[in-house]
Amino acid sequence: MAGPLTDHPEFGPEFRERLAALFAWRRDVRRFRPDPVAPDLVRRLIDQCGLAPSVGLSEPWRFVMVESGTARAAALANFEAANADALAGYSGDQARLYASLKLSGMRDAPVQIAIFCDEETPQGAGLGAQTMPEMRRYSVVCAVMQLWLSARAEGLGAGWVSILDPERLARDLEVPESWRLIAYLCLGWPEEEHADAELERAGWQDRLGVDNRVLTR
Amino acid sequence: MAGPLTDHPEFGPEFRERLAALFAWRRDVRRFRPDPVAPDLVRRLIDQCGLAPSVGLSEPWRFVMVESGTARAAALANFEAANADALAGYSGDQARLYASLKLSGMRDAPVQIAIFCDEETPQGAGLGAQTMPEMRRYSVVCAVMQLWLSARAEGLGAGWVSILDPERLARDLEVPESWRLIAYLCLGWPEEEHADAELERAGWQDRLGVDNRVLTR
Repeated sequence: MAGPLTDHPEFGPEFRERLAALFAWRRDVRRFRPDPVAPDLVRRLIDQCGLAPSVGLSEPWRFVMVESGTARAAALANFEAANADALAGYSGDQARLYASLKLSGMRDAPVQIAIFCDEETPQGAGLGAQTMPEMRRYSVVCAVMQLWLSARAEGLGAGWVSILDPERLARDLEVPESWRLIAYLCLGWPEEEHADAELERAGWQDRLGVDNRVLTR
Repeated sequence: MAGPLTDHPEFGPEFRERLAALFAWRRDVRRFRPDPVAPDLVRRLIDQCGLAPSVGLSEPWRFVMVESGTARAAALANFEAANADALAGYSGDQARLYASLKLSGMRDAPVQIAIFCDEETPQGAGLGAQTMPEMRRYSVVCAVMQLWLSARAEGLGAGWVSILDPERLARDLEVPESWRLIAYLCLGWPEEEHADAELERAGWQDRLGVDNRVLTR
């Protein structure tokens, strides 16, 4: 596939409209039906991550399918401890509201994937990551975002759990020392579909948009 | 838009095929035609970033349109210094190859946007970011990825420059102390379209895919 190609795809207004709908209806899902997800569908979604951008083509993403009872229990206990600690940091009405939120689908999600960044991969020979080594982590986030959008286009929901002790999860999942947790993804068929975020509906935080977020220099 | 909605969009096989083509043809573009990009198109792409996921709905993304000659010159000088430093870290054939690579389109790209994360935003009240405060940065990366895909769907190319001293750029662009540079994006109409990455064509690094990157626990 080397060289300029003339048969590149055009994306018309209809596709762009659907893409905008995909962005609008992508949600962080925490409520899953127990129905299984076909393993080849999951694998196809992960394979597509290989098309994500990565700094210096370092492809630092590493996927751990969390399947065994032991691994699932360790991840859930990790979340519950971190969530209790987080709750202790709020008080009054905010604490009551926080306690009422459902912040992970780890009890129900049929597919759970821990996604790591290999901080020491030699791939790409460090290109683009000398002054900003965090670019490797950001590359993994790009892959996660691509997986999330692909999953939604299949009707699947994905939820990104970050209320976790990342070092402890890495130890419990016995991954190499150089791997850093980027995302713990719950994946499955969603119980409901919404155009607004669960945190908006629950009254935790409104979505404000970008109106006051653009400066010119 | 509260409550479960029944009129949510279905995404069929045809859309998924086009989405896969979007992923396959998204490139990190460093060669731009000088033609201008309509400001309202750029603004529409940035507005769509408001639909990106963010931890606790913190929406920590901040956009700086880099337009003045002074700001552009500071950014370009920053890149050139960082790139010279990076080159000095390679030797022999690798140094010669590195020196031959075109690693930014900053001289030609008609639109240049520095995208920051406000590390101290009170929005979202820290939800989801207690054990992994880097989630705010990752949220900004999600917005960048969404912008990148939207731009490509419009026929635009985007290039993410990371060969920069991020603290110096933040100072030169006079942004608040709590803002951390995530991405410097060059945007414009691409000179060429490719299905493979420039670093692959140049022989720096092959894309390896995810085959050996999936473990089970």
